[in-house]
Amino acid sequence: MHYKQLIQKKENFTGNIRILFANEEKYIAAIINLLKTTHAHIYIYDIEDASELIRSYDLDIQLLRRIHFKLNDNLRDLFYSCSQDLEKDSTSILVKGNISTTRFKKFLTQAFGNASQSFNHIACFDLPQYYKTLVLSDVVYQRFPEYKTKINTIFNLKRFAQSMEYDHFNIGILSSVNQPFVKISSSIDAAKLKEHFAKMNERFITVDGPITLDNAIDKNIAIQKNEMSEVAGEVDALLVPDIDVGNAIYKSFTLIGHAQVASILLGAAIPISYTSRSDQLQTIIDSIHLAISLS
Amino acid sequence: MHYKQLIQKKENFTGNIRILFANEEKYIAAIINLLKTTHAHIYIYDIEDASELIRSYDLDIQLLRRIHFKLNDNLRDLFYSCSQDLEKDSTSILVKGNISTTRFKKFLTQAFGNASQSFNHIACFDLPQYYKTLVLSDVVYQRFPEYKTKINTIFNLKRFAQSMEYDHFNIGILSSVNQPFVKISSSIDAAKLKEHFAKMNERFITVDGPITLDNAIDKNIAIQKNEMSEVAGEVDALLVPDIDVGNAIYKSFTLIGHAQVASILLGAAIPISYTSRSDQLQTIIDSIHLAISLS
Repeated sequence: MHYKQLIQKKENFTGNIRILFANEEKYIAAIINLLKTTHAHIYIYDIEDASELIRSYDLDIQLLRRIHFKLNDNLRDLFYSCSQDLEKDSTSILVKGNISTTRFKKFLTQAFGNASQSFNHIACFDLPQYYKTLVLSDVVYQRFPEYKTKINTIFNLKRFAQSMEYDHFNIGILSSVNQPFVKISSSIDAAKLKEHFAKMNERFITVDGPITLDNAIDKNIAIQKNEMSEVAGEVDALLVPDIDVGNAIYKSFTLIGHAQVASILLGAAIPISYTSRSDQLQTIIDSIHLAISLS
Repeated sequence: MHYKQLIQKKENFTGNIRILFANEEKYIAAIINLLKTTHAHIYIYDIEDASELIRSYDLDIQLLRRIHFKLNDNLRDLFYSCSQDLEKDSTSILVKGNISTTRFKKFLTQAFGNASQSFNHIACFDLPQYYKTLVLSDVVYQRFPEYKTKINTIFNLKRFAQSMEYDHFNIGILSSVNQPFVKISSSIDAAKLKEHFAKMNERFITVDGPITLDNAIDKNIAIQKNEMSEVAGEVDALLVPDIDVGNAIYKSFTLIGHAQVASILLGAAIPISYTSRSDQLQTIIDSIHLAISLS
């Protein structure tokens, strides 16, 4: 699937968007963009009042009516109020705003309980060098996933791909080698995952690994190296061994490859837009639109 | 230091180059290039005779006289003959040719004994997005380096930088975070390494970490994130946590970033050009010239 299809704007979208912390220029700009490109109602949970920032945009009163402030003077009450609203009131998507990863994780545990342990983060990349979107998991949320967590992530990815109406979804399990080696645990896990899903006779997804990054996105290299995987050059999603690998790839793709990216959290009942505070405005906007597409 | 300075050709170079396996177009092309750009003598250790491949280049007889074949019909004798020559005869550099990583490692153990355990691989990148060469260790040789090995690698890097006449050398210890976190072992090692070298009062090198890839090569990002390392945006070399990280970065830089790269092995008495069989011809040529510069 092409990146543009993933983040396609739903202009008739009328749902409720809840965002945790927006008191920064970038997040306000994203909210203004959303007001203008959809019919969404936006609920801002914050400690600081961002209405002055918003007023500077000189918005039409019709748009302003769709912004709702939920202010609280401490984090505990704020988290509680947002959790309650998520439970009671209709919510289309949740948005991680100007809040640290650690704090947002705490909020998720409070709002979703143990279920939050089976969430996983995906970063969807538009790479000029690859002919379709490359999905990467996990660059931030599941730091050192165990085998069971990896299985769960693959099912989250499957549901994601079904919702996005992929015809078929190829999942490559990343390693530094293309064959299982005892001394490289990522490659052993990969071979086990491949076997596990081969036995399940899954038709919609193909799981293959271990596979290196070059083989995953370039079939010619795989042929040259005589390491031809079923998914070589055709990978839709890559599962990375751990956060050190994921983080390095994320930074390489965005900084060195100038890739566009949209990031969300999978596994919850609602899609969660999940960006880093150092991400660009466009990434925040794209991520919210991707979450809306999934809602 | 700029990449061009690192791989600058020494046209008056008259030393002996020993290459293990050259029976492939790419390696022959590199050898022809060396004959034409230096006065080196080249010793080819191989099982197959590549003289026909070489004849197709229609070389001047003067150049041909500087190619010497050392043929053997089995790997054991070949390794033995090359090891003996390395011990007895003068050698400027050793070149990994068309031979697998696993086999070449075996050869190194035979030729250099236990000393080969403290070798480390460096890949020197010319990234269009970075203003100087970025050295990465280790993307292939030290797979899951222990703390002691990392210390040793830092000293290898220091000797490398001194030989290449750097004024000062900044070493960043890569992680997925910029502060030590107990659950992320790469960050803990990084903090320990930083402390270790701070105590040694090293002047020529600065060792700092943990540092993420974006902070390492972009000072503005580090400032924005309020994670200002002493080496942010100024890193000369990055130590990666393990081969899964190193391999992913290597593939991202070359495939996505179209980076030029030269690779050698540090720690031996002689520089060793150490490329992957899937590397481009230019990488093989640059790596040999880098090794010559160090010899």
